[in-house]
Amino acid sequence: MIVGKVVGSLWATRKDNKLNGLTFLVVKPITHEDGAISRDSIVAADNAGAGIGDTVLVTTGSAARTSISNSDVPVDAVIVGIVDSIEVSHD
Amino acid sequence: MIVGKVVGSLWATRKDNKLNGLTFLVVKPITHEDGAISRDSIVAADNAGAGIGDTVLVTTGSAARTSISNSDVPVDAVIVGIVDSIEVSHD
Amino acid sequence: MIVGKVVGSLWATRKDNKLNGLTFLVVKPITHEDGAISRDSIVAADNAGAGIGDTVLVTTGSAARTSISNSDVPVDAVIVGIVDSIEVSHD
Amino acid sequence: MIVGKVVGSLWATRKDNKLNGLTFLVVKPITHEDGAISRDSIVAADNAGAGIGDTVLVTTGSAARTSISNSDVPVDAVIVGIVDSIEVSHD
Amino acid sequence: MIVGKVVGSLWATRKDNKLNGLTFLVVKPITHEDGAISRDSIVAADNAGAGIGDTVLVTTGSAARTSISNSDVPVDAVIVGIVDSIEVSHD
Repeated sequence: MIVGKVVGSLWATRKDNKLNGLTFLVVKPITHEDGAISRDSIVAADNAGAGIGDTVLVTTGSAARTSISNSDVPVDAVIVGIVDSIEVSHD
Repeated sequence: MIVGKVVGSLWATRKDNKLNGLTFLVVKPITHEDGAISRDSIVAADNAGAGIGDTVLVTTGSAARTSISNSDVPVDAVIVGIVDSIEVSHD
Repeated sequence: MIVGKVVGSLWATRKDNKLNGLTFLVVKPITHEDGAISRDSIVAADNAGAGIGDTVLVTTGSAARTSISNSDVPVDAVIVGIVDSIEVSHD
Repeated sequence: MIVGKVVGSLWATRKDNKLNGLTFLVVKPITHEDGAISRDSIVAADNAGAGIGDTVLVTTGSAARTSISNSDVPVDAVIVGIVDSIEVSHD
Repeated sequence: MIVGKVVGSLWATRKDNKLNGLTFLVVKPITHEDGAISRDSIVAADNAGAGIGDTVLVTTGSAARTSISNSDVPVDAVIVGIVDSIEVSHD
């Protein structure tokens, strides 16, 4: 899973009907390691009640659909949790 | 999901019959963050009535097939929406 | 989907029996945008009658298996079409 | 699969209920080759009893869910083993 | 699919029981094009009787499980063939 910060929202009126009712948020992945390539932001459907500024856990790929009740929804990234804390050791 | 701009079209007469009737568009991903690597354009099947110049939402992977009525269609990227607006905070 | 040029062939006598009868071609992805990272060639099973020098459309991931009649074939990239033309606007 | 070192933990109280009971660990991929791009850390659910400092084997994508008893759990990376040793030849 | 050279082996005693009996090999992807980014080695389960030094064909993603008789095995990369020869044209 990816950890990222919610930095924005996306609106699309003309879309696949199966996407109706979903909230689309722009998530900027957090880079944990110096020297690692900065990944560009992605758009994820929200399934955790996230808001701008929240640090979130994002599941990608086919697993994203298992978070949504309807497995026919065409999403490849879903916010599945709000991160309380991350502890990383650099020893 | 990826946000991109439709920059072109692709034609293929000789192809898997299951692809008949689909429109293939060339989508250039939009880079949200300075310093992020520019991703190359991809080819996506259109399921939102998109045209050249439109900003679109693209779903990739197995989720792409859930947007098409027939799940046996060999596509790995589908345009699922026309983006009205994106608001990104850089605070 | 990826657009690429067929630049070679691969032979493997000792292989998973489920791969018998398939032709494996080496496909070099075509880079559409200046500054985008050049992607390395991939090996794809041919389902469009492609030959060396052809520009082809390649579907990757689980969608690749939907192009082959038997969904148990362990392939993650299949050539699904021969590209006639691509029109890209750089306005 | 990816080989990595467990460098941290992640806590999320507000999350998809299907994730309850899982432990989320931060795994830093180990780079085997000089010159290869350093990959950023990922978050993986633990299914091998791993702890900080362990070298682990991580399965990603839809295969991650096959390690968890419930295939509806929205995870895209799972620790499936603790690595005892890796022998790599550089001849 | 990826073409690579087998450069090592990995042992893990404590692992998901569904992985028992599999051999895990370290595969270094072969770069076909100058200027393409060198990809780091991956760990793949062997389904072709490969050994150190062999050039192999590796299938990734959900397709990897179709090569193993039991589709519940949590692997995302499997060696599906031993490569006899690759002919690439650079015209």
